[in-house]
Amino acid sequence: MENTTPFDILITGGTLLTMSGAMEIIDNPVIGIRNGRIVVVEKGDDAPAAKFTARETLNATGCVILPGLVNTHNHLPMACFRGLADDLPLMEWLHDRMFPTEAKYVNRHMVYDGSRLAMAEMILSGTTTFCDGYFYESGVAQAAIDMGMRGVVSQGFLDFATPDHPDPSKNIRIAESFIDKWKDRSPLISPALFCHTPYTCTAETLITLKQVAREGHCLYISHVAETQDETRLIRERYGTTSIRYLYQLGVLDERTICVHAVWVDEEELDMLRDTDAKVSHNPESNMKLAVGVAPVPAMLRKGITVGLGTDGCASNNDLDLFREMGTAARLHKVAMMDPTVLDARTALSMATIGGARVLGMEDRIGSIEPGKCADLIFVNMDKPHLTPLYQVYSHLVYAASGADVTTAIINGKLLMKDRKLLHADLEDIMEKVRKIGAMIADNK
Amino acid sequence: MENTTPFDILITGGTLLTMSGAMEIIDNPVIGIRNGRIVVVEKGDDAPAAKFTARETLNATGCVILPGLVNTHNHLPMACFRGLADDLPLMEWLHDRMFPTEAKYVNRHMVYDGSRLAMAEMILSGTTTFCDGYFYESGVAQAAIDMGMRGVVSQGFLDFATPDHPDPSKNIRIAESFIDKWKDRSPLISPALFCHTPYTCTAETLITLKQVAREGHCLYISHVAETQDETRLIRERYGTTSIRYLYQLGVLDERTICVHAVWVDEEELDMLRDTDAKVSHNPESNMKLAVGVAPVPAMLRKGITVGLGTDGCASNNDLDLFREMGTAARLHKVAMMDPTVLDARTALSMATIGGARVLGMEDRIGSIEPGKCADLIFVNMDKPHLTPLYQVYSHLVYAASGADVTTAIINGKLLMKDRKLLHADLEDIMEKVRKIGAMIADNK
Repeated sequence: MENTTPFDILITGGTLLTMSGAMEIIDNPVIGIRNGRIVVVEKGDDAPAAKFTARETLNATGCVILPGLVNTHNHLPMACFRGLADDLPLMEWLHDRMFPTEAKYVNRHMVYDGSRLAMAEMILSGTTTFCDGYFYESGVAQAAIDMGMRGVVSQGFLDFATPDHPDPSKNIRIAESFIDKWKDRSPLISPALFCHTPYTCTAETLITLKQVAREGHCLYISHVAETQDETRLIRERYGTTSIRYLYQLGVLDERTICVHAVWVDEEELDMLRDTDAKVSHNPESNMKLAVGVAPVPAMLRKGITVGLGTDGCASNNDLDLFREMGTAARLHKVAMMDPTVLDARTALSMATIGGARVLGMEDRIGSIEPGKCADLIFVNMDKPHLTPLYQVYSHLVYAASGADVTTAIINGKLLMKDRKLLHADLEDIMEKVRKIGAMIADNK
Repeated sequence: MENTTPFDILITGGTLLTMSGAMEIIDNPVIGIRNGRIVVVEKGDDAPAAKFTARETLNATGCVILPGLVNTHNHLPMACFRGLADDLPLMEWLHDRMFPTEAKYVNRHMVYDGSRLAMAEMILSGTTTFCDGYFYESGVAQAAIDMGMRGVVSQGFLDFATPDHPDPSKNIRIAESFIDKWKDRSPLISPALFCHTPYTCTAETLITLKQVAREGHCLYISHVAETQDETRLIRERYGTTSIRYLYQLGVLDERTICVHAVWVDEEELDMLRDTDAKVSHNPESNMKLAVGVAPVPAMLRKGITVGLGTDGCASNNDLDLFREMGTAARLHKVAMMDPTVLDARTALSMATIGGARVLGMEDRIGSIEPGKCADLIFVNMDKPHLTPLYQVYSHLVYAASGADVTTAIINGKLLMKDRKLLHADLEDIMEKVRKIGAMIADNK
């Protein structure tokens, strides 16, 4: 029966990294996709492609096929601020540059246009799922639907006026209506709530919004323990440290993502493990903003689930998760003076199945197995910088870049082929953001 | 007169980063190249392109034109070992994996083929000049001539048997004849001597080879102060530290390049400054091998000349200097917990004019000025990950990758256009290295 109904897409050839439990690698596989799902994954020798029919057949010869990468932390609309302010201390960067720029220029259109640009960049560099947190987040959700990307869209909250919501007393109602609006709207979209930080949100906001998230079965995200300044602030105000504070408030659980988690002590690691709270690790942002090095190898040893994120373009400044993998694998080696602490396979796991676990979506994405959503990419290994090939994990982490990704399929839909976006007008998207950039540059 | 003789190449449009003393940036420039040299650099408005004639005209609209990048440290033939052994401690990696593999597989053909692959990768990612150190170095020199690349080729020496020279007692004669062979052979090639480390070369070798280099007016290169193990070894043997040791031996001068220089104290920095010895900084290799973080911001403050290098493919694992710039700029920020210590402009300077100074070639390369060699590249900024554009240094360092380079000119010859190598059979080069890789993988 299955063999007689044509696939939407049939993939043959290449080398498949399943990233499933057994980390099976299949040379010359056959992968069948139907109705957005992976329905067949077999060795080509066992299941010759000729026995299947398909509307579209993709030949992956010379490529590695792997699950689309999962970017666990982003502020996609900030693509509009890429390179606007670099090489500044974080608090100056945030309070003197980012917040005023956001107050003036963030609006519904900027969010939609900036998100589409960021999504184009992500698809072109092999990311198929993102987790975003920003203002006017419905614009991000709409952009994802229009671009065909999978995403967790988290409406952002602070306890002062934000670009989209001048009155923080209405935060609960806004949160509830955001979840209502996007729940079950599209298979691509999962709504969530994003409390900016434990020092820009009051305890009441942190607690009540977690309650709203729990009622909606949604993710709850916060920047936590990013800087020493934050640690000092939290200690001054609450006599404790950031993770401890959230633990005491009762907001840590398996659907809470702690973004950054740089300044975390041993006992706090235990709190993360015991509550099954997740960590989004953003090494390039942490380096560029000079905030410190998160104890990721210790987290992994404890069994804490860690995914990779790029953070927004204002602090990275690109969204290439291949680079982020390479940076993660290198950074922890030098930080711990031990080249064995985070190997290539672990880095790739963090960017695929690990990221899926962070988002609570490991039943749907993060590996290539029958029954999962068809989110996958091809990386062209036929390049001088990927030659010769001894070990595929090594090349993907230490030598490949997003520019080596040729093909991207999300939810069973072919979005990129031969590095061309098939369902987006890239020139138009770039032109719209250039206009926003020109306005900001001219301070208009 | 100058205006009537046609240029070999005329470049119009785009944005020129001169990287010259004044760091002038020229929008819509006109650049004329003749006989391998830059002869005209003007604003397009002052000197309309129509008043010049040229054999070939290149339109750089949408691109940034900048000096070709300078990679100050490499072991190019090790491209054959890319990804063969990762995530291991340096001494194990070097002594248990690299040295035995080299003893078995390094030969004249491997050096030539591996170098051509590495050069293809470098040209494709915007590097126009390299400084290499390895065995059978004449093979690297020949590959550079055949590929059209500019390079410092340094014959490697250790005080034990090497793949090309079983008897270290003949090192002096070999060094002299290597210099004789390659001096004045090609405008692309500068011969030099590479003493592996202060612990694998005896004091006598270090001193006598420096003498040979001085007599030949050649560069003298050594890995120095790379690891704590090295520091311990040097202290045990000589009762001092690596840089001090070389200083006491009298081998530090303006034509000595200290590669890595990670474990260096304040007084040693003064020795580097006082002797005008140069430093090659290889951040990605240092991170991946977990050796430490070189005090580059302190070096720059003291006025020490620092260039960037990728190191060989066995420890990086690619040769993309754009990535290396981004890593350098980020690494020192987090290492010093100060985001202002190494800004984007400084990183780009290190990879261009700074690298040229390290190689003593700043009169010929490293900036785009009339009279200099025509080594330059175009970076296509018309990409989503480089949009919008506020500040060009920022994008080149924090967001661009080698894959954004579209055009490369070395010594006035157009080697790459639209990302295609014009004078190299890339498929043949890759196939030859794949065969070497297959032999190594099969341990044949």
